[in-house]
Amino acid sequence: MKNRDIGVIDPWGSTSIESYEKLFEEFGIQRIDRLVDLIPERPSFIRRGIIFGHRDFERIVEAVVKKQSFAVMSGIKPTGPLHVGTILTLREIVFFQKLGATAFYCIADIEAYEDNGIPFEESERIALDNLIDALALGLDPSRAYIYRQSKENLVKDLAFIFARGVTLATIEAIYGVRHMGLYMSALIQAGDILLPQLKEFGGPKPTVVPVGVDQDPHIRLCRDLAHKFREKFGFIPPSATYHKIIRGLDGSPKMSKRNPMSYFTLTEDIESIEYKLRNAFTGGRATAKEQRRLGGEPEKCPIYELYKFFFIEDDDKLLDIYLKCKNGEILCGEDKEFAVEVVTSFIKEHQRKRSMNVDKAREILGLL
Amino acid sequence: MKNRDIGVIDPWGSTSIESYEKLFEEFGIQRIDRLVDLIPERPSFIRRGIIFGHRDFERIVEAVVKKQSFAVMSGIKPTGPLHVGTILTLREIVFFQKLGATAFYCIADIEAYEDNGIPFEESERIALDNLIDALALGLDPSRAYIYRQSKENLVKDLAFIFARGVTLATIEAIYGVRHMGLYMSALIQAGDILLPQLKEFGGPKPTVVPVGVDQDPHIRLCRDLAHKFREKFGFIPPSATYHKIIRGLDGSPKMSKRNPMSYFTLTEDIESIEYKLRNAFTGGRATAKEQRRLGGEPEKCPIYELYKFFFIEDDDKLLDIYLKCKNGEILCGEDKEFAVEVVTSFIKEHQRKRSMNVDKAREILGLL
Repeated sequence: MKNRDIGVIDPWGSTSIESYEKLFEEFGIQRIDRLVDLIPERPSFIRRGIIFGHRDFERIVEAVVKKQSFAVMSGIKPTGPLHVGTILTLREIVFFQKLGATAFYCIADIEAYEDNGIPFEESERIALDNLIDALALGLDPSRAYIYRQSKENLVKDLAFIFARGVTLATIEAIYGVRHMGLYMSALIQAGDILLPQLKEFGGPKPTVVPVGVDQDPHIRLCRDLAHKFREKFGFIPPSATYHKIIRGLDGSPKMSKRNPMSYFTLTEDIESIEYKLRNAFTGGRATAKEQRRLGGEPEKCPIYELYKFFFIEDDDKLLDIYLKCKNGEILCGEDKEFAVEVVTSFIKEHQRKRSMNVDKAREILGLL
Repeated sequence: MKNRDIGVIDPWGSTSIESYEKLFEEFGIQRIDRLVDLIPERPSFIRRGIIFGHRDFERIVEAVVKKQSFAVMSGIKPTGPLHVGTILTLREIVFFQKLGATAFYCIADIEAYEDNGIPFEESERIALDNLIDALALGLDPSRAYIYRQSKENLVKDLAFIFARGVTLATIEAIYGVRHMGLYMSALIQAGDILLPQLKEFGGPKPTVVPVGVDQDPHIRLCRDLAHKFREKFGFIPPSATYHKIIRGLDGSPKMSKRNPMSYFTLTEDIESIEYKLRNAFTGGRATAKEQRRLGGEPEKCPIYELYKFFFIEDDDKLLDIYLKCKNGEILCGEDKEFAVEVVTSFIKEHQRKRSMNVDKAREILGLL
C-alpha cells in the first residue's frame, strides 16, 4: 500500500523488495539498474527488476560489448521434478547464451546425495527428467557443457584443492553445524563455478552465475576461493546476478518442497496445478464488495507474481491486469481462472517441447 | 628400573609400555599376545611385543589359517624422504604379504597437499623416491596394488559417499578445529582403507591396517564408516594391529620431523646419520664409573630401541647387548660405535637395493 499512499504505481515492484535493501548495505551486493541498460533486448526479468542485484557484473557487460569469451554457470540438484521457479533460471541461462556465453550446466548429483541422501543410481533417472525440462525451456546444448558432478573428475579435484582454503569457522558460518557431506557439497559447488576457468575449458574467463539471492553465501565462498587460488589457476572472481525469490502460492514467503501447496512442478498433472491455483492465497480483500471499493493488492499476490515472474511476457498486458486489480475491476475468482488458462497452456506447450527433447537428453547423459 | 627392582629381566619391554595400558581399557584396543601365537614364523616385531595391540585381528588369523583372501592396507604421505620408522611398517606389510595378503599401498598425495600444502606436481617426485625405498624394503609389487590418491577415483568417490556419515562433532573430536582439507583427508583415508573391499577389487574381504598406536582415531573413524555403509557395500570392519612408537634419538618421546636430531631418513648422508647416533641420548649414567657400578638403562635408551625395533633381528644378539648394558660391561661410547656400524651397513645395503628398484618404481607410477 505504500506505493498507493504516495501516488506511485509500480507494477514491477513488490512489497518484499524492502527486505533486499540490507543486502546492498550489509553484504556488498550491487544494484544492477544502470548496468543492464547497456544490454540490448532486455527480457522481462531484467525490465521488471526481478534480477535486482549483482557482483562484478561489469565484467560480463564488458565481455558482451567487446564480444569476448565468457561463461554462464548454473545447474540443477536432481532430487525430484523441476519446480516452476526453474523457468526463471533457465531463461537467465538462455539469455546469457544468446549474448554469447558458453553455458556450464551441472547436474548436482553429489549434492543430491550429500544434502538429500539420494544415491547416484537413483539421481541418474531424475537427472534425465530434469534435463528434458531444461532443454524444453530453451537450454541450447550446442553451446553448453552439461555434466554430472559424480562423473566430472576436474570438479572433484577442485573440491579437494579448495578444501585447504576453507576454515571450519567459514563453513560453519554458512551451513551451521552439519555433517561433512554438506560441507563437501559447498566445495564441490565452488568447483562447479570455477570449472569454466580451467585451462581445459579455455579459461580463465569471466563467468556469471545467475542465482536466487538466498544463494549468495555460496557465491561469496566461491569468490573467496577464486581469490585464494588465483596464483595457481589465474581465476577471475566469478560474477553473479541475483533474482528475487517468488513467494509461495499459499502466501508463504518462499516456494518450498516441504509445502506442496506452495508450488507446482513442470511435469505435474494439470488437474493438480489447477487445484493449487484455485486455492492460492491472493492480494484480494475480505469481501467482493470491499475489493470493488478498495481494489486488490497485486503487490502481495502470488498469482500476480506468477504472471510477473514467468507467464506474462508482454508488459502492457501485465500492466493492464495490475491496474484492473488495483482499481477493483477484476476479482480474484475471475483472475484465477485466467491464471489457470495461462499456466496450463504453458505447461501443455512445455509437455510438447519435452517430448521433442527426450532423445537429446538421453544422448547428453550417455543413457542411450 | 622397575623390572630390576623386582628381579625380572625383560629385554623386550619398555618403560613406556605403561602408557599403552589405558588404550586397552579406555579405547577397546585388544592385547595381541595369544592371537599371534597362532601365526607361524613370528618376526621380531611380534616376538618382542612391538606390535602389542589389535582390533579384530581374529579375522586376519582366520583368513591366514583357512587360506582365504585378505588384504593389508598401508601407505606413505609423500612429504619428504622416508623416516627410519618406515622400516617397521614396511616389514609389517611384507610379513602380511608372505602370509597371503594382497597389499594395498597408497601414496597419500591428497593428504600431503591438504596437511602439508605440497602440490601434486611436487609430491609426484617425492612419491617416486619414497616408493623406491618401499620396494627396497621388500614390498612385493607383484602382490600389491600401488596407487596415488589423486589418481584413484574410487577412493575419492568413497570419500564423497562417506562424508554424509560423519558429523562435525566427530571430525572435530579427532582433528580439532582445522581447515576443511584436513577433514577431507580423513575421509580420503577411510576411502583408502575400505578400497580393497570394493567389488572392483574382489571385496568385501578382511583387511588389516598395521599402524602406530597414535593412528587409532583414524582406524576408529574408518570402522565406524564401514558399519554405517555396510548395507550399501557389505564392508567387513577393517582390522588393525598397533605398534609402539619408537622414541626420538634425542630422548624425545617420539621421532618427529620438527626435530631433525630425533630421527634420520633412509636416504640421509652416512656422515649425518653417524653424527646423530654419536650425539644421541642414551640410557647411560652420569659417569663411566657409575655406569660400571650400576649398569645402564637400556629400557630408556633410544639406541637400544633402534636395535630392538629395526636393526638387530637375532634375539640372542639383542639379549647379549641388553645384559652387557645392564651389567655395566659396555659403556655408551663403545655401544654407539657399534650402532654406527650396524646402522650404516644397513643403510649402505639399502642404498644398493634402492638402485635396483628405481626403474620398477618409475614403471608403477607411470613415470617412465
